[in-house]
Amino acid sequence: MNGVRPNILAMKGYVPGEQLNDPDIVKLNTNENPYPPSPRVFEAIRTALTADKLRKYPQPLGDTFRQAAGRVLGVEPDSILIGNGSDDILTILTRTFVPEGGRIVSPTPSYILYRSLAEIQGARFETIRFGEDWKRFSGPWPAPGANLAFLPNPNSPSGTMLPVPVVLKLAGDVNALVLDEAYADFADWNGLALLPRVPNLIVTRSFSKAYSLAGIRFGFAVADPAIVREIVKVKDSYNCDVLSLAAATAAVEDQDYFRGVKTKVLATRERMRRELGELGFEVTPSHANFLWCRRSDRPVKPVYEELKQRKILIRYMNYDGYDGLRISVGTDEEIDRLLAELNTIL
Amino acid sequence: MNGVRPNILAMKGYVPGEQLNDPDIVKLNTNENPYPPSPRVFEAIRTALTADKLRKYPQPLGDTFRQAAGRVLGVEPDSILIGNGSDDILTILTRTFVPEGGRIVSPTPSYILYRSLAEIQGARFETIRFGEDWKRFSGPWPAPGANLAFLPNPNSPSGTMLPVPVVLKLAGDVNALVLDEAYADFADWNGLALLPRVPNLIVTRSFSKAYSLAGIRFGFAVADPAIVREIVKVKDSYNCDVLSLAAATAAVEDQDYFRGVKTKVLATRERMRRELGELGFEVTPSHANFLWCRRSDRPVKPVYEELKQRKILIRYMNYDGYDGLRISVGTDEEIDRLLAELNTIL
Repeated sequence: MNGVRPNILAMKGYVPGEQLNDPDIVKLNTNENPYPPSPRVFEAIRTALTADKLRKYPQPLGDTFRQAAGRVLGVEPDSILIGNGSDDILTILTRTFVPEGGRIVSPTPSYILYRSLAEIQGARFETIRFGEDWKRFSGPWPAPGANLAFLPNPNSPSGTMLPVPVVLKLAGDVNALVLDEAYADFADWNGLALLPRVPNLIVTRSFSKAYSLAGIRFGFAVADPAIVREIVKVKDSYNCDVLSLAAATAAVEDQDYFRGVKTKVLATRERMRRELGELGFEVTPSHANFLWCRRSDRPVKPVYEELKQRKILIRYMNYDGYDGLRISVGTDEEIDRLLAELNTIL
Repeated sequence: MNGVRPNILAMKGYVPGEQLNDPDIVKLNTNENPYPPSPRVFEAIRTALTADKLRKYPQPLGDTFRQAAGRVLGVEPDSILIGNGSDDILTILTRTFVPEGGRIVSPTPSYILYRSLAEIQGARFETIRFGEDWKRFSGPWPAPGANLAFLPNPNSPSGTMLPVPVVLKLAGDVNALVLDEAYADFADWNGLALLPRVPNLIVTRSFSKAYSLAGIRFGFAVADPAIVREIVKVKDSYNCDVLSLAAATAAVEDQDYFRGVKTKVLATRERMRRELGELGFEVTPSHANFLWCRRSDRPVKPVYEELKQRKILIRYMNYDGYDGLRISVGTDEEIDRLLAELNTIL
């Protein structure tokens, strides 16, 4: 296509994820939450559903949400930037910190979006493999002087977390460190406490996982207000709509409901870890709402394919020959069905 | 801020538009539609408001919307790209066509976002002034070889349209021509018919104006499917949420309602043109849902300020000394109040 930047032309075409419409499908492939959002979310959307709210522009900075989230997380509202999903936030951060020809670093195997963001920006993308235990790297990190590092914590597909010293070391090596905490709501700790002592740290969060709101697209960043004052320049003026803002505000305010969902997800995660282990999978201990499962006795791709034929959708992932299955935590009924089918297949 | 790109650091801080919460305010400053969205929009949002829709990711390409809009506009669904407001589309187009150090051209006075998009991308921004009648340029256009041109049609703040030959000439001069048709729903003609013969043309549309949906953030682009296949790589995977998609689909399908709203807006626009003219304003004939008003006998900024004190919000705009008032078309009751206050002030 004439006029399109060469870095965009060189990118592979977009392949939408598997979205089968059959209501009978057990969907354990994209880490959506199997439980509904808080009842307060529905109430808040219904309340916001007025002619006046729909026809007028929404709050550009989401002040009502920032105040609510600030109270819940114990941070200042002006340290929060709202986003149209945390992907929007990751895009904004890339554009703020990385010039064309700049450098983005990230561990691998990890979230494939990071490479796409580098490609769109015309930046170099450098990776280093995780070590066997996912808690360190397998060699020296190529970070020094990089414009930006993406560090997912917990990581996908492994569900593992890097210890604080590794995070701090990396923050010292790069211009800006993005701690992608899309799954941190399921973990025992997170990076918010590090913010006051690490001025170049940006923590990002999502409402798609723990808050059961993948459909409404909402995420946010927490960082030093001096950083927020810069990254806000890069976002679209009205990047979050009035219904999503209402939903996210209600969701974050209902921490009791959130804790209830978290408890159920963690209980099922533990059950899956145990029972998948008994079926012969090597299951990595997870801090997220999914499990990374491998086998040394047989290839796992056929397992994925056989499950799909039986209307159970999980994720087969292959990173340069290192492959495995990423299985989202579902309801106990969904996991009953998964385990029953696996019993038959194996 | 350490690590932030110099082009971002150099940008002015974000200044949110005036959003007064007083329900008594007559808001004629941001070209929102004074009428409610179609009743079918409310119905569609209520129908989409289920736990399953909220907790799952939405359609990445908005296929249901693309089919509906394709039918209404008479274009192929795969020539449509969905966006989180048309600002999202303009951002995506900039990132697809303009490298750092590239060139964006645009007429002036016009939409100030175009300059911000160039600044964020680290590109040069070149403008040329409109001629007196807004239908040509006041000198040679600095376009040849530019990566991208933004051409708003109708233009803001003037509400005027460039004739087809001017559009075609410019398309021949630049790599990609974006015809920003945020206000085209209020005009007599638009650029969709040009698409088959101008392969580097991209038409963008908004639901914030004619469809009374500024609150839900939805816009789209129409272009050759070969262009759509490239720009889709640059958008966030799930850039539109499930409720906005439902709302936009219902709105575009209710063309009877849209025509009713358009008829009312155009009637009030004609009345405003006439009565503001009688009050001594030089009113530019408008193809949009606002009017550009100037005076040769006195400065207009005090008029804006006095109206604001009387709880009527319009827009005072100043482009390097060339200034005027941009007044959105409101309901007839709102315009009664505007005209009564203007009578007192003048």
